[in-house]
Amino acid sequence: MDEKELKENEEAVLSPQTVETLLSERRYAELKLLTEKFTPIDLAEILEELPTEFVTRFFRLLTKEDAAQVFVEIEPEFQQLIVEAFNDRELSEMIRELYLDDAVDLIEEMPAGVVKRILRAADPKDRDTINELLRYPEDTAGSVMTTEYVRFKKDMTVEEALAHIRTVAIDKETIYTCYVTEQDRTLIGIVTGKRLMLSAPTDKIADIMVDNVVSCVTTDDKEDVALKFDKYGFLAMPVVDFENRLVGIITVDDAWTVYHEETEEDFAKMAAIRPSETTYLKTSVGALWRARIPWLLILMISATFSSMILSFFEAALPVVLILFVPMLMDTGGNSGGQTSVTVIRGLSTGEIALEDVPSVIWKEFRVALLCGSTLAAVAFSKVLLVDRLLMNNPEVSLTVGFSVAIAMFVTILVAKFIGGVLPLGAKRIGLDPAVMASPFITTIVDVISLLLYFGVSRLLGL
Amino acid sequence: MDEKELKENEEAVLSPQTVETLLSERRYAELKLLTEKFTPIDLAEILEELPTEFVTRFFRLLTKEDAAQVFVEIEPEFQQLIVEAFNDRELSEMIRELYLDDAVDLIEEMPAGVVKRILRAADPKDRDTINELLRYPEDTAGSVMTTEYVRFKKDMTVEEALAHIRTVAIDKETIYTCYVTEQDRTLIGIVTGKRLMLSAPTDKIADIMVDNVVSCVTTDDKEDVALKFDKYGFLAMPVVDFENRLVGIITVDDAWTVYHEETEEDFAKMAAIRPSETTYLKTSVGALWRARIPWLLILMISATFSSMILSFFEAALPVVLILFVPMLMDTGGNSGGQTSVTVIRGLSTGEIALEDVPSVIWKEFRVALLCGSTLAAVAFSKVLLVDRLLMNNPEVSLTVGFSVAIAMFVTILVAKFIGGVLPLGAKRIGLDPAVMASPFITTIVDVISLLLYFGVSRLLGL
Repeated sequence: MDEKELKENEEAVLSPQTVETLLSERRYAELKLLTEKFTPIDLAEILEELPTEFVTRFFRLLTKEDAAQVFVEIEPEFQQLIVEAFNDRELSEMIRELYLDDAVDLIEEMPAGVVKRILRAADPKDRDTINELLRYPEDTAGSVMTTEYVRFKKDMTVEEALAHIRTVAIDKETIYTCYVTEQDRTLIGIVTGKRLMLSAPTDKIADIMVDNVVSCVTTDDKEDVALKFDKYGFLAMPVVDFENRLVGIITVDDAWTVYHEETEEDFAKMAAIRPSETTYLKTSVGALWRARIPWLLILMISATFSSMILSFFEAALPVVLILFVPMLMDTGGNSGGQTSVTVIRGLSTGEIALEDVPSVIWKEFRVALLCGSTLAAVAFSKVLLVDRLLMNNPEVSLTVGFSVAIAMFVTILVAKFIGGVLPLGAKRIGLDPAVMASPFITTIVDVISLLLYFGVSRLLGL
Repeated sequence: MDEKELKENEEAVLSPQTVETLLSERRYAELKLLTEKFTPIDLAEILEELPTEFVTRFFRLLTKEDAAQVFVEIEPEFQQLIVEAFNDRELSEMIRELYLDDAVDLIEEMPAGVVKRILRAADPKDRDTINELLRYPEDTAGSVMTTEYVRFKKDMTVEEALAHIRTVAIDKETIYTCYVTEQDRTLIGIVTGKRLMLSAPTDKIADIMVDNVVSCVTTDDKEDVALKFDKYGFLAMPVVDFENRLVGIITVDDAWTVYHEETEEDFAKMAAIRPSETTYLKTSVGALWRARIPWLLILMISATFSSMILSFFEAALPVVLILFVPMLMDTGGNSGGQTSVTVIRGLSTGEIALEDVPSVIWKEFRVALLCGSTLAAVAFSKVLLVDRLLMNNPEVSLTVGFSVAIAMFVTILVAKFIGGVLPLGAKRIGLDPAVMASPFITTIVDVISLLLYFGVSRLLGL
């Protein structure tokens, strides 16, 4: 227990307040020693809590290796602070320490003036690569890959390959998956670090490489790439151009970030929120308002259709029918929402493809029959037992009960159909299915359930 | 382009139908050659599409290495088919090929009779470990870890460590992160494969190891472990007991699976669906019905409260007010849903902690003020312009407009408050916040918005 307690104590000691105190009192050696007990991720969190004037001073205390990793983790505003405080030599050193994909991410976040300084500070060779990587459109595999991988020729021996790794590894993002290419960079196989270490020194790379390589193309959607990581459990995946020449790799940590971001985007869209890249606690009230108000307004205005239907039937039908409008609308909305979320996630994770449309609709139709009849039966009993007998409301007649039950049944059928078809249709025409979630479905189902309810009531002679 | 086209052609060739044909015609050598061009994940997908009688025949054709990986990927029903077709020797060989965490997963899915055979077929030492792993409760770090890691003593040299890896690596789930422990297995550091390969052969492990190790305890929630992977970008994480002794490791692919499952569970719960472990297309209609109907029923019955309010005010208030009930209820539900989804996800990803409750509520209050006033103003204009003037409905008076606007404003305030407080409260008392999503919030907001609307209308003299 001692070690653990000790560790927790240490963690308690390196709060932003401690850092501030130690910096103010110039107890640099002490602070430096303390920082070494923490991972760069933890140090990044502490840095972001410091008052602006302490940020650069704290950063300069970190070891060169930690510094580069901390720098990658912190928010752009802090990166900018540090870059602006750096002289050209410091900046050059820092850029050299960064992996190129991280340098590209940095540049994409900085204002133009800072970008110029960064590019000037980079080695000419790195600058060329950075500029090349910057040209890949956002959301593509090219935009998240790095060019720092280990490449073997197929006629190398294991011994030569290991020697090659030792020379270049320090600058490579991973050495656990190495790539075998032809002279013209055509990808022909991969060799894992494990395989290398377990093979005889004289083995030929061509004999130990795996040649059924799963790769992606620079123009692939980065979300699809993340799904491949999810499916195959890779540590890294090669990125090739249209001629199958290796141009970069994507590592599992970057794929995980993409997966994480895309999932949160789906959650936001499904709740009628415009997705944002900043985290909730750091987003301003104004920005939250701007992210949330558009869909609220659109959906609110769309409710005009419900008003129109209510106003059309208002005069002719008994007022008692109104009692069950919320129940009908909500249950319809919930049923449609269940289906739409299921289909949207199925499309997102790749489980449902467009060719599955008939089987999805057929399945949802049968589920809707079961749900619809259950709900209709329960609604019928509930209306008559609770609202008629228990609440003693004589206006709630048997016919009202039948109207509710029949409307409920058909509403569920329609709601589940719409909930399935709208996301699939959106996907089909290239829109984002995630928008076709509960809030949107609810608004449509409202109108339909009202029409059905009042239509049925009228047919039944109410 | 040729290579790519070729590859696509090959893929087209190994359809389940091709496998069936080749097996029926006993063209085994040809089929075996073909399978070698595919990853185990792809082969697993093909296997699951085969008619039952071909499954074992196809499986026996695979190389030993592929077979173990394919076996891990397929659904339990297919695993059972294969285990039952195996003789004891084949079964023993297969269990030996599996990593122990996969063997544990298998055992958890098999019926008792099959479990007995599997345990009998395992090596006595493996059997002990399997039994130990089986004792960790589901959802804990212990239940997803494996015990097959590489362990160094701190006084080993790099050369000795590399030699050690070469002897044991074949059975280890990863060699890219190795663990340094004391004699009593107390975890004191980690050494990455990269560091090992880049260090001088005579370097001491104690000098090159990293000692600020992030670890988890066997009893930790596996969801929290997955979040640590998401945060730190690890390839593997050590699992220790309460005395900080190393008992296992979790690898990134297993952490990703946990993260994926937990996210999909959240999506399901937030759509009022009881989460299931099987994928949609493979879930039966009956199972889908059972997953969806409970919440639909609960929420439908809860609508009784809306009916009660409507019935209470029905006689006294002008019917024209009904026109705007759907708009008010839906907008309230959507607003509350936005907040609840934001808070639920914040809690799930660890961005929002319980100590953030005051700042979340304060932030949501200000966002609600902005959203509420925007929506109230637009609703007021819409009611008067569209419903009164455009639709020419004289009953829609200025007072009705004011009632709608005021009710809208307060509804948004309340909805966003409830949307924030319910998930936080659920978390506080140890319930799953994900249940407090739109469907649930909507049902509560319905009741409150109706009360507000009719209350305000009465106050304004309608």
